[in-house]
Amino acid sequence: PKRYSITLLPGDGIGPEVISVAKNVLKLAGSLEGIEFSFQEMPMGGAAFDLTGTPLPEETLSAAQKADAVLLGAIGGYKWDKNEKHLKPETGLLQLREGLKVFANLRPATVLPQLVDASTLKKDVAEGVDLMVVRELTGGIYFGKPRGFSSDEKGEEIGFNTEVYATYEVDRIARVAFEIARKRRGQLCSVDKANVLEASMLWRKRVTAIAAEYPDVELSHMYVDNAAMQLVRYPKQFDTIVTNNIFGDILSDEASMITGSIGMLPSASLGESGPGLFEPIHGSAPDIAGQDKANPLATVLSAAMLLKYGLGEANAAKRIENAVLDTLNKGFRTGDIYSAGNKLVGCKEMGEEVLKSV
Amino acid sequence: PKRYSITLLPGDGIGPEVISVAKNVLKLAGSLEGIEFSFQEMPMGGAAFDLTGTPLPEETLSAAQKADAVLLGAIGGYKWDKNEKHLKPETGLLQLREGLKVFANLRPATVLPQLVDASTLKKDVAEGVDLMVVRELTGGIYFGKPRGFSSDEKGEEIGFNTEVYATYEVDRIARVAFEIARKRRGQLCSVDKANVLEASMLWRKRVTAIAAEYPDVELSHMYVDNAAMQLVRYPKQFDTIVTNNIFGDILSDEASMITGSIGMLPSASLGESGPGLFEPIHGSAPDIAGQDKANPLATVLSAAMLLKYGLGEANAAKRIENAVLDTLNKGFRTGDIYSAGNKLVGCKEMGEEVLKSV
Ligand SMILES: CC(C)[C@H](C(=O)O)[C@@H](O)C(=O)O
Ligand SMILES: CC(C)[C@H](C(=O)O)[C@@H](O)C(=O)O
Repeated sequence: PKRYSITLLPGDGIGPEVISVAKNVLKLAGSLEGIEFSFQEMPMGGAAFDLTGTPLPEETLSAAQKADAVLLGAIGGYKWDKNEKHLKPETGLLQLREGLKVFANLRPATVLPQLVDASTLKKDVAEGVDLMVVRELTGGIYFGKPRGFSSDEKGEEIGFNTEVYATYEVDRIARVAFEIARKRRGQLCSVDKANVLEASMLWRKRVTAIAAEYPDVELSHMYVDNAAMQLVRYPKQFDTIVTNNIFGDILSDEASMITGSIGMLPSASLGESGPGLFEPIHGSAPDIAGQDKANPLATVLSAAMLLKYGLGEANAAKRIENAVLDTLNKGFRTGDIYSAGNKLVGCKEMGEEVLKSV
Repeated sequence: PKRYSITLLPGDGIGPEVISVAKNVLKLAGSLEGIEFSFQEMPMGGAAFDLTGTPLPEETLSAAQKADAVLLGAIGGYKWDKNEKHLKPETGLLQLREGLKVFANLRPATVLPQLVDASTLKKDVAEGVDLMVVRELTGGIYFGKPRGFSSDEKGEEIGFNTEVYATYEVDRIARVAFEIARKRRGQLCSVDKANVLEASMLWRKRVTAIAAEYPDVELSHMYVDNAAMQLVRYPKQFDTIVTNNIFGDILSDEASMITGSIGMLPSASLGESGPGLFEPIHGSAPDIAGQDKANPLATVLSAAMLLKYGLGEANAAKRIENAVLDTLNKGFRTGDIYSAGNKLVGCKEMGEEVLKSV
């Protein structure tokens, strides 16, 4: 059988519960396709801070770097909100992205027919939404230097950051986005603020240049403020969106909320080579942690992305995706996506139901 | 009678049509309250570029600076999209904001009961939304230095901008926002990205410090990605939002689209002293320009904000606001807010109907 090593990072809050479900689903789907996994669980986030004093221990990063793929649950919680910046769970996540060099963050936002009522948008606006946000993840204002605190000419304290993109950074994320758009509906919308920002002007110039390599993909450009509106007005107009780190942070969260079921949404973060990082887009939900209430499907679908994008195992991925749809069709729902007439289940039972359909 | 001088900047596209309506409404509401206006129309945006070769002629800026208030229609259009950056209509607008030192941009997003169906959000989510975004308008990444193009150590071209806030800049916008929240429902939500950006950490620290001056206002903090989600999930949770220039650009547009009727939404931009700048939040809509199809109500309501926030003439402002509501109650609708059972009118007729109710 084919063998892959997976680093599991359960993290905080509901992380361990959803990772446990996803691990079982991954195992079964793999075994049915002649794939064997070795799993290594490592501490990350607040849990790692409590254990080792740092949110991303060196052992965790190096295990992740050596793995074939990394599956993360969720990180963060009130408990660590007052940590100094370099000791916050979020900082650990940024270090993990940097350490794995995963510059391309893929965040699908899909409204499943079974869950269209979960959206706060009117049915005719929400139904059929199926878009992918490709967010640049290791550059821009998140990592740009100089950054810090200083004082201005009047002696006033200032805080500052640098939004910066280099040609090669835009080129590589643009290529990832064009490749994805090509396999989807062939439409790519690049989002920037090129009417104001030089970093965005370079972005637009390079995305436009790379478009020449993809004559089969239709490229359009949109300002970020307009994109934030259009996602609310008529989200179906979007196929694939490509944008920078901070705009992608904002717009992908907006897009995911439009589906109304963020407990369903996975993500993949990919580099040039080396292991990808796969995680649900939802947070650690400390308020329901340990109560068997979490929706594990976003993490299960992240495991499917791991198979498809991380390992190239499309068949095993398809098994998982279909199993999730079957389970929804049978009416099983966790609390976050529950509606009258369906069967309310906990995290574990949802996992068992998915296993039956894999 | 009291006298005020108003600089009118019709600008591009539908700008001249909506300004012409708002001017008449302003005149009438003023005369009924013992106020006389002198109006001075000046070129701005693409129209100014065509006339003088620059989007903000010196004469326009100095007329605006000398006026008691400035009312702007809309700027921009395909025609000038290929202009060099310093000749774009948008650049003229940024220069106008800078030249008038209007650091506080007030953008209400209100769902009127008459227009709740215009929203793409479900009725129970949209109805009753009544929020105000207070956006910092003359600082942050829009104006921060250094900015430009250069090359990195590998010789690759880079484009870069600086997100920067000084203590005094945050303090003054925070005070404006607290004052507004105090007159509304007493809740202020400050939006930042303090888990990643130093500029946001300073922002959060200063907003928190200023809160001590406003014990009657309840302050909360939210990350920008979460705010983009919460506006879709449950917009009624917000009263007053305060945020930086770029986040405010994105979130205020998202909030306005949630109302479904951006042809109705006004804005005010205020400085420490000197004239304020008032404008509808919609664009210049070149596709319907000159066809008497534009909705003039956003500009009419901007004139009401001009009276209230710019001149302290609350009674005259109230006259205009009530006249707009009356006109909607009578069923008059421009195309953008039309629904079955109402009376479809053009820009001019809408203006005449409002005049009847002032
Ligand atoms: C936790 C935070 C640092 C992170 C980000 O801003 O990238 C999160 O919002 C995300 O989108 O994964
Ligand atoms: C036209 C553009 C420069 C402007 C901005 O980004 O501030 C606009 O989007 C706005 O919100 O008024």
